Amino acid sequence: MNRKQLVEHIFTKKTFLCVGLDTDLNKVPAFILKNEDPIFTFNKRIIDATAPYCIAYKPNLAFYECYGLKGMHAFEKTIQYLKSNYPNHFIIADAKRGDIGNTSRMYAQTFFGEYDIDSVTVAPYMGEDSVKPFLEYDNKWVVLLALTSNKGSKDFQFLEDKKGTRLFEHVLTKSQEWGTPDNLMYVVGATQGRLFENIRRFVPDNFLLVPGVGAQGGSLQEVCKYGITKDCGLIVNSSRGIIYADNGESFAEEAAKKAKELQEEMEKELARL
Amino acid sequence: MNRKQLVEHIFTKKTFLCVGLDTDLNKVPAFILKNEDPIFTFNKRIIDATAPYCIAYKPNLAFYECYGLKGMHAFEKTIQYLKSNYPNHFIIADAKRGDIGNTSRMYAQTFFGEYDIDSVTVAPYMGEDSVKPFLEYDNKWVVLLALTSNKGSKDFQFLEDKKGTRLFEHVLTKSQEWGTPDNLMYVVGATQGRLFENIRRFVPDNFLLVPGVGAQGGSLQEVCKYGITKDCGLIVNSSRGIIYADNGESFAEEAAKKAKELQEEMEKELARL
Repeated sequence: MNRKQLVEHIFTKKTFLCVGLDTDLNKVPAFILKNEDPIFTFNKRIIDATAPYCIAYKPNLAFYECYGLKGMHAFEKTIQYLKSNYPNHFIIADAKRGDIGNTSRMYAQTFFGEYDIDSVTVAPYMGEDSVKPFLEYDNKWVVLLALTSNKGSKDFQFLEDKKGTRLFEHVLTKSQEWGTPDNLMYVVGATQGRLFENIRRFVPDNFLLVPGVGAQGGSLQEVCKYGITKDCGLIVNSSRGIIYADNGESFAEEAAKKAKELQEEMEKELARL
Repeated sequence: MNRKQLVEHIFTKKTFLCVGLDTDLNKVPAFILKNEDPIFTFNKRIIDATAPYCIAYKPNLAFYECYGLKGMHAFEKTIQYLKSNYPNHFIIADAKRGDIGNTSRMYAQTFFGEYDIDSVTVAPYMGEDSVKPFLEYDNKWVVLLALTSNKGSKDFQFLEDKKGTRLFEHVLTKSQEWGTPDNLMYVVGATQGRLFENIRRFVPDNFLLVPGVGAQGGSLQEVCKYGITKDCGLIVNSSRGIIYADNGESFAEEAAKKAKELQEEMEKELARL
């Protein structure tokens, strides 16, 4: 999916919500476990219920890999289901990959070639040759970690150089040499609040993928106040807050309600642009 | 495997070689492709030929994931083959994972629970809660990226703070609060040469996993001169230089020759301690 299509979907559907498919068999309703492929069954129900309210889905690979081959089979089926039934939804493989050049090339082939997914999250620590192979595919996106939503983000991402420039700011600046707003997004956690204003000075046009709304405590209003652009420029993710909204027979309907609530807040934000 | 066992294996076998199982179907001998599971067939031959000369194997996940479920099946079979036939060999899943705490917990479960592998490489960018879940397993190891072997290592890892402390030095120092020399190793690329001396000031006792010997141009002698400790403290990896030493019928025998050459150099280095 290219940038123009992504922006069109956001304004047509009046939402920039991404639903995180972090499917954990310890948290899904008990009756789902009776199915032959409970992960895919759960995902399918969640997807069908929430698709009207979101423009993206983000399966986190950790939640599939941890069930071995069965988990990866459920991941593949989920991707196929999305591509067949909701081809306009943007798919983010939340994998946080990154390795030396020849190895990153294999990861890029996995997510963009083998699975034909729109984007993948990438860790910046290993620098240029670890990121560039992902940027060589047409209409595919790197979502580079810049400022994450977790407590550990404080450990290294805020380290300042002699001039007071912080590591995450170096990541934003340096990576601009590798990609463009047409193929490079950044992860900026909703928990970082006012820092969005600062981040927009470095990357005024790039899309930001914003996790941390909901379970992690980030505020949608604050993210929009400081981070939204005329093209929206935001994809806001909620995982646990939506998919585990309810633990009973009507879990999918409750997930849809939560997604709709966020969609309605987002519609208001988009109307202000 | 605990530290005492690892050190004993190194001194008993007179080698600290790790063979990287970066199995690429574009590089294996053509006749191997006729097998039903060419990745596993190749790995099995390489393992049987090189096992006398190494103490560790390091499959890089990228090379398995990129073949989808078939690749992951070959990965599982390779791990099972190693555990059944060479239980004293240390296994490193080179996966460079790392995510927010609850997600890193799933990755730790994958590699340490599901696959029962000795260690996994982890990226430090997301800080404490992204690393700690991996450190909660007995006799399992985190191999944290500190100073990598690739060109891109220059982009962020050398950034200096106001006092001249570099990012990779911060990673070494901060992570000492999370783990000990009994469960925490560091990746330091052989291409970093003399920097090993500097690194040993920060982590005098931790094992270092050293990629970059061979195809990437690092020198074993230099690594040992500045990085070896009385317990050895080094696991030196070679991937392409060993497993693709030859492209014909005798590829495994040629791989064994390359591994033996490195083992003989290592034996000399250990004899000096």
